[in-house]
Amino acid sequence: MSQESYDGGDLRNTGMRLKHDREWDYELDRIVDAVAKRDAETVGLQFPEGLKRRGPKVVDDLRERLGGDVTVMLSGQPCYGACDLDTYLMKRTDVFVHFGHSPMKESEKIIYVPLFSNVEVTPIIEEALGTLEGPEGSPDVGLVTTAQHMNRYGEMREFLEERGYEVHSRRGDERLTHEGQVLGCNYASADLPVDQVLYVGGGKFHPLGLAMEHPEKRVVIADPVNNVVTVADTEKFMKQRYGAVHRAMDAETWGVIFCTKIGQGRWEEAQSILADNDDAYLITMDEVTPDRLRNFDVDAYVNTGCPRITTDDGPRFHRPMLTPGEYRIATGEKPLDSLSFDTFHGTW
Amino acid sequence: MSQESYDGGDLRNTGMRLKHDREWDYELDRIVDAVAKRDAETVGLQFPEGLKRRGPKVVDDLRERLGGDVTVMLSGQPCYGACDLDTYLMKRTDVFVHFGHSPMKESEKIIYVPLFSNVEVTPIIEEALGTLEGPEGSPDVGLVTTAQHMNRYGEMREFLEERGYEVHSRRGDERLTHEGQVLGCNYASADLPVDQVLYVGGGKFHPLGLAMEHPEKRVVIADPVNNVVTVADTEKFMKQRYGAVHRAMDAETWGVIFCTKIGQGRWEEAQSILADNDDAYLITMDEVTPDRLRNFDVDAYVNTGCPRITTDDGPRFHRPMLTPGEYRIATGEKPLDSLSFDTFHGTW
Repeated sequence: MSQESYDGGDLRNTGMRLKHDREWDYELDRIVDAVAKRDAETVGLQFPEGLKRRGPKVVDDLRERLGGDVTVMLSGQPCYGACDLDTYLMKRTDVFVHFGHSPMKESEKIIYVPLFSNVEVTPIIEEALGTLEGPEGSPDVGLVTTAQHMNRYGEMREFLEERGYEVHSRRGDERLTHEGQVLGCNYASADLPVDQVLYVGGGKFHPLGLAMEHPEKRVVIADPVNNVVTVADTEKFMKQRYGAVHRAMDAETWGVIFCTKIGQGRWEEAQSILADNDDAYLITMDEVTPDRLRNFDVDAYVNTGCPRITTDDGPRFHRPMLTPGEYRIATGEKPLDSLSFDTFHGTW
Repeated sequence: MSQESYDGGDLRNTGMRLKHDREWDYELDRIVDAVAKRDAETVGLQFPEGLKRRGPKVVDDLRERLGGDVTVMLSGQPCYGACDLDTYLMKRTDVFVHFGHSPMKESEKIIYVPLFSNVEVTPIIEEALGTLEGPEGSPDVGLVTTAQHMNRYGEMREFLEERGYEVHSRRGDERLTHEGQVLGCNYASADLPVDQVLYVGGGKFHPLGLAMEHPEKRVVIADPVNNVVTVADTEKFMKQRYGAVHRAMDAETWGVIFCTKIGQGRWEEAQSILADNDDAYLITMDEVTPDRLRNFDVDAYVNTGCPRITTDDGPRFHRPMLTPGEYRIATGEKPLDSLSFDTFHGTW
């Protein structure tokens, strides 16, 4: 999912242009220990897009500590989440390190380095108090954040509780590592008996998904990275979704995308669509991009991979691109008012 | 290699916009036989970019003959040659068909369907006689073509011989299937004792590589697809190469790209660069694109994968992108006049 290229909706402060200079702990000791323990000759490092520029410096630091006999490699594959492991590099290196995300599934093979943010969170939560309802009369608030700020989740909760809020939280499902954590594709941690949810974290990517998944809740965004408080507004996004569904209603032929990334495949979903539609064609790929689909001659696409490619990048594709649920509306199987956000559950 | 996006050099008629409507023989009988023989439940189809739009129709024809119990899948991965197999799909289907290229390496697993062109070649060769030297005084001519026109290679040769030419040809090396065949990365079939080579085929992608690899030979292009005869002109390309080398001379840090595509990996080349340069970082990836490299913070790149990405797409990258030979010039290991075209030999 290309956050940078998105030009619609409510993603102005995406966290891509940071106001804070952040320092990260790459946990080199843990990597060096694993190399020694496994007598490793090769180490693979995978960084998310926003941190790839740090890669060469981390390699320098590792080389200095590991010496010349260990080959350190950087993954050049795009990476947008723990769902998005570079399995080629993982299989071909003795130690494989995935930076910037919490584990979607524990594995002996993979060292997950979460890269917790050092940004203070309480000042922006203080500012958000002016936007939250309550605590008088409406003391209930759900609290969620991203992997980067999980190390301060207790601090966030305490701050709110001290000011009279009843803070609700849950872990979500097995796709999520921590209590209160959200992913771009999974907001099960906000399945809470509250009317308002406070999201603490950088950018609008996550809270926008949260607001689409839970349209009945008010989502207040306390962004400690860009230093802004806003309320998630999904209107423009939802109009785009309805627009795409309507355009796809005339489609005679469909491309059914099965994503081959380890954490983004929904094979049964793809199969069930194909079973009922003779004019649907299964297309397998890892990166789902407008360029790659331009050469196929079908009228519309249904994407069973990452839902955020569909909802956020959808307008960039030359043909309507729908989620599985939207596909069933466009083909008349389900009513228009069943339109909802596509979420992703389970691991692999 | 993105031919369509190329905006420099001598690639005006790239064969992407065809004057002839071509019919292809997809050899469905061979595929249906293989499915029966292997009792296959899944079939994977991989088409090159220019033929992906035909994919759904081929699926229709196969479904009609195979019935509903066999799942047919289309590869959505980019595909630019026999070097570029969708190994994910190949491993996960019982029958895997690669269309449009001749085998780089025979395999039980893969059915290669060459898709020979039905375009007549003798009319454009007749026109090329006005551009070729001889036959009086200069009867020698090398003859090369691409996989698509290999079925008419004998006809081409006969036509020239009947007009008094001495036609030279050879098979090239193991990367090439047929006598007289060229690839975008391999022109060993033109290692011939001649001053002129006739290339018969669509577009300028192949003859331009041929002329760069054999700068001492005059390369006449007889393009039966676009109906034009020209002489390959590498000047603009060579200027770009020298420009990139000069810009990279100031580089302090290098990204060394190792391509993970099955037929595009030169591991030892990458290792030898890394062994001699402490400021070089190994980056592994399948598709080598400007977007993917933009996030790394190095001064220049050396690409050990497909040479045509470097020479043809090079100007689109945000930092200088060199071939391994050019890298050695930029770092002072070799003299500037050693600059030559980067070719790819062997299979995998």
